[in-house]
Amino acid sequence: MPTHTTPARGPSRRAWLQRLGAVAGSGAVYAAMSALGLAQASPAEARFRLGPAPARGRRVLVLGAGVAGLVSALELLRAGYEVEILEYQDRIGGRCWTLRGGDHYTELGGAPQHCQFDRGQYFNPGPWRIPFHHHGVLDYCRQLGVRLEPFVQLNHNAYVHSPRVAGGRPQRLREVQADFRGDVAELLAKLVRQQPLDETLSTEDRERLVQALQQFGGLDREGRYRAGEAAADRRGFEPFPGMGVSAHPPEAQPQGLQALLRSGLWGQLDQGAGFEYQTPLFQPVGGMDRIAHALAQAVGQQRIRLRRRVSAIQQDARGVRVQVQDLSRPGQPEQTVQADWCICTLPLSVLSQLDVQCSAALHEAIEAVPYFSAFKAGLQFKRRFWEEDEAIFGGMSSTELPIRLIAYPNHELQGRKGVLLGAYAFGTQALEFTSLPPAERLREVLRMDSQIHPQAATEYESGMTVGWHRHPATLGCFGDWSRVARERHYPTLLKMDGRLILAGEHASLLPAWQEGAVLSARHAITQLHEKARAA
Amino acid sequence: MPTHTTPARGPSRRAWLQRLGAVAGSGAVYAAMSALGLAQASPAEARFRLGPAPARGRRVLVLGAGVAGLVSALELLRAGYEVEILEYQDRIGGRCWTLRGGDHYTELGGAPQHCQFDRGQYFNPGPWRIPFHHHGVLDYCRQLGVRLEPFVQLNHNAYVHSPRVAGGRPQRLREVQADFRGDVAELLAKLVRQQPLDETLSTEDRERLVQALQQFGGLDREGRYRAGEAAADRRGFEPFPGMGVSAHPPEAQPQGLQALLRSGLWGQLDQGAGFEYQTPLFQPVGGMDRIAHALAQAVGQQRIRLRRRVSAIQQDARGVRVQVQDLSRPGQPEQTVQADWCICTLPLSVLSQLDVQCSAALHEAIEAVPYFSAFKAGLQFKRRFWEEDEAIFGGMSSTELPIRLIAYPNHELQGRKGVLLGAYAFGTQALEFTSLPPAERLREVLRMDSQIHPQAATEYESGMTVGWHRHPATLGCFGDWSRVARERHYPTLLKMDGRLILAGEHASLLPAWQEGAVLSARHAITQLHEKARAA
Repeated sequence: MPTHTTPARGPSRRAWLQRLGAVAGSGAVYAAMSALGLAQASPAEARFRLGPAPARGRRVLVLGAGVAGLVSALELLRAGYEVEILEYQDRIGGRCWTLRGGDHYTELGGAPQHCQFDRGQYFNPGPWRIPFHHHGVLDYCRQLGVRLEPFVQLNHNAYVHSPRVAGGRPQRLREVQADFRGDVAELLAKLVRQQPLDETLSTEDRERLVQALQQFGGLDREGRYRAGEAAADRRGFEPFPGMGVSAHPPEAQPQGLQALLRSGLWGQLDQGAGFEYQTPLFQPVGGMDRIAHALAQAVGQQRIRLRRRVSAIQQDARGVRVQVQDLSRPGQPEQTVQADWCICTLPLSVLSQLDVQCSAALHEAIEAVPYFSAFKAGLQFKRRFWEEDEAIFGGMSSTELPIRLIAYPNHELQGRKGVLLGAYAFGTQALEFTSLPPAERLREVLRMDSQIHPQAATEYESGMTVGWHRHPATLGCFGDWSRVARERHYPTLLKMDGRLILAGEHASLLPAWQEGAVLSARHAITQLHEKARAA
Repeated sequence: MPTHTTPARGPSRRAWLQRLGAVAGSGAVYAAMSALGLAQASPAEARFRLGPAPARGRRVLVLGAGVAGLVSALELLRAGYEVEILEYQDRIGGRCWTLRGGDHYTELGGAPQHCQFDRGQYFNPGPWRIPFHHHGVLDYCRQLGVRLEPFVQLNHNAYVHSPRVAGGRPQRLREVQADFRGDVAELLAKLVRQQPLDETLSTEDRERLVQALQQFGGLDREGRYRAGEAAADRRGFEPFPGMGVSAHPPEAQPQGLQALLRSGLWGQLDQGAGFEYQTPLFQPVGGMDRIAHALAQAVGQQRIRLRRRVSAIQQDARGVRVQVQDLSRPGQPEQTVQADWCICTLPLSVLSQLDVQCSAALHEAIEAVPYFSAFKAGLQFKRRFWEEDEAIFGGMSSTELPIRLIAYPNHELQGRKGVLLGAYAFGTQALEFTSLPPAERLREVLRMDSQIHPQAATEYESGMTVGWHRHPATLGCFGDWSRVARERHYPTLLKMDGRLILAGEHASLLPAWQEGAVLSARHAITQLHEKARAA
């Protein structure tokens, strides 16, 4: 569930780390890993399939029925292992979760929330998009018949917004983007023409560059970015409906480089630039939890025990023993579940609080990863004013307000009602939202949403909020690895520890993404399989 | 059905005119119209609705059951007019057309083609995408319940291609785009740092610019675009599957500015840049003709007579008389259909061959617009190798080959089979394809497609080709207005001529787009309505 913007006034160290370690920059993590000598072909390279399970010692206990647990269970079953999954919550899926009308959610110490969305409306509090290169997730969607539809990452008609720019009036992304590119292209074209570069660009290459800049920037024939035909083809037209047989000419005036630079709005222009946000992205038709449900159906519901709280994991040379409380039978004593092997997909934030019998190094690794805080709010509105009044169909607007973005539904376009992602906040801003009771959070989100869409205040119907750091089953949004922690503890975290191995997005180089959970699961069961066959 | 690329080696005058007059640049046309003093609010500004029809003289004959004819008929009916539509073909929709298994198509003087696609597979030979700002088309989709889904215009993992670059190996769009932006950003950042500009940029503004360029270009902390973390976050990773828990570091090397400029591939980078191609765009679920069918259903099939060939349009002060041949009754004499008013949506290429009683000025206008030639081929393949082997889900690859682009289906992702748009050629290239018999065209298309996707040769099943200049009902793809013709004849073409008025994309500022047909229809019936009420 990473973000898509960088701060407008220059990245702070914290923001930089977020981008690097968890958010947009898996490239950074790869580079770091290569320095650690861990570079090797990924198990996703070929279609994944374990060889046959050994005749004995093939009972595996999987802790957690999120994506990592379900994928582990499915592939182990296919190989002939005996598998049982224990899940704390009363539903499968973990963070692969969709809220619909009738659903309940109670956070840590919080008031219960009851979802009142209309039939057909939904909100994904966790992951909500799938990049085209997340082969593992896409592979299971294909295998299990989960239908996908495009997720609109980049909507040129959505807004960029800062309360301190243009009197707080939101700006169309297409206009700010066109102005930035036009100004940059004009400036470079001028400099290239004026003076010899100390580059080895020939005269012909320089002419090519000027021509390329003209196309790129929407410059006129004199190489200027000015109100007129070429610029209008990039900025779009205002007034907007002027598209008739006889229509307003484009009169909109570019704002100029200085104003653009000072506005800081250029900082919101990279919404689709990073590899993980490059179009196309996808979403399952009907909600993200379609993936978890398809996996669970393939595993077999009878192998999944819900409402089981694990308190301890013990192991010796002969097997593992897990202490489990059946929450559906309060007052009953804990039970011991035995198996030959254990795959634990519990978030480290939870696992660090359990009594786990493992090496000191793994203990340290489990303790080493803080969890990221994040807050999302899903709000249902009476009508799709963003579509009807503002021609915004899907995608997202970004803002410097604490809500950070407003995302519009990408499905059932031109439908009657719709659920907006009204806020997607991180870090301290997420903590501030969740310091309020749910109803007040929603009021606060609506107050901010209304600065961008004034209609929000009157068209609102109902909403749900999820602060992941207060979610009882995860105690955080995702494992927020520092570079130092990666170097020191990541290799340990990936290794089999006796009969126990961990899996989940926290045990991957793609934190916060379901693909991380898939790849981690495949990695874990591959190791388990090798050890089981050797045993 | 405009294109999305500009020629790689600098726009020719012809290409420039194409872009301006018909293709990407409606801005240009607006500017031209404003010089003509025609600028006024578009009828799309408010939700369109005609006032009540007059008590007498309200019988309207509509020629052509394409989008313009159907919209005219629907809105006139709603206002209380009596409407009849005459259509030459044996189907409604005109260029709003979808080919499916079982369909037949016979072009002018050509062999018949029989569509052998599997159930559920389709191909739109005409319009295939709807920009977010085509309010008229979107409005009818909303009113009539035509479901829309996103059309992937820009796929970063699709290819750009030239047979003379890199040994003809296709390049991923994301890599070429990242390299262009990175090189441009690095060069400008260096120049801005090195020397004082004759701009009025303060030192602080220059620092802001450098920071913005760093984000924009994926530059490293020293402001360089080099193999490494930041560049990899823009280019993506190779080898591609290296996304596991332990993975290859990004080693891909940017190609360098000089090589990029000389390759000409930068000319293929504006696929989503123009206003008409800015994301999001949409397509009707199930095929473009869902729009025509929804309109026809709202009009009432009983008001539409198929297979009627018009030979003459006469008029006097009391009404219009249209000479019509019923093609379903060969040998029968022509009939005369009378009405109070006539809306003629026949393409000018067809209308110019009929006997029309109108002013000399309108005659001249009808003769003044040449029609654009265009060729499309839809090919069904046994499997979606572009998805399975190359991770290309929707969108399009572009090439300097005569096929110009290959477009991938945006729906039923990860389905078993799929129909590619294997060619979309214009002008002389379109004429060259259609100089061959259909089977040979398909061989030629396949040969070129295989240069980009070698799998095409072996996975091919069946195909359909449509050369619009050989389509018996349109004799061309769309009205290819020159700027001179616009100035001289366009105002005449829009005016009521006695009891006759024209409509269609050719009578709009959005040639080739369905939105042009909608706006033109609304314009025409508004004028007719005023005149009918005054009569």
